[in-house]
Amino acid sequence: MDGFDADAVAAEIGAAFEAYERALGANDIEALAGFFWDDPRSTRLGPEGGFYGHAQITAFRRARDVSDTARELFETRIVALTPDLGTATTEYRRLASGRRGAQSQVWMRRPEGWRIVSAHVSLQP
Amino acid sequence: MDGFDADAVAAEIGAAFEAYERALGANDIEALAGFFWDDPRSTRLGPEGGFYGHAQITAFRRARDVSDTARELFETRIVALTPDLGTATTEYRRLASGRRGAQSQVWMRRPEGWRIVSAHVSLQP
Repeated sequence: MDGFDADAVAAEIGAAFEAYERALGANDIEALAGFFWDDPRSTRLGPEGGFYGHAQITAFRRARDVSDTARELFETRIVALTPDLGTATTEYRRLASGRRGAQSQVWMRRPEGWRIVSAHVSLQP
Repeated sequence: MDGFDADAVAAEIGAAFEAYERALGANDIEALAGFFWDDPRSTRLGPEGGFYGHAQITAFRRARDVSDTARELFETRIVALTPDLGTATTEYRRLASGRRGAQSQVWMRRPEGWRIVSAHVSLQP
């Protein structure tokens, strides 16, 4: 946790997080798929179940019902853990239904840019 | 992702993950609190909302209703991202109610041992 500029790293992750959120709002499937680590080990857990590897995650995107996905965020936090890795967590409220949930992501700096290696999305019961 | 023994790191994280799961099964509140990074930046997201920092997470543990928490795990995966950091993800089925959900954790090697810096638990709606 020492020996690097955590604020600068968090700013980079925050910018990637915000770009991802914009792609989500636009349901830009190609952009969303591109944010995930292109590897069999990337993971997305959510109300629809678990998706393992970039191929499964992208197939989920293409099939997803995006009604009631517009949302506002709160309690968003970015934590830089190393110069090349950090977490982004947020809670959200869906605008149409008012349903609340949470989202967590692990971001890793790759040669191709910052990528999500693991994501988890939940809706409160 | 290169230059370290990912299998060995994953084995260490897996052992910590299993010890945490045993503490969860026993509702060993002190042990569970001890597994979390003792820092204001540690985070736990779940059906009960977000808890931020070790003090909030520990207070949640003490107040938690632990009926219907016994569970079986499936699709458990450990991914070592650096020599000192990795993820543990799993899906689960609660034994009493049959309800399904998912859990994700980010584990970091600290001077005091492997600790959870971020956790997210969800129950399917």
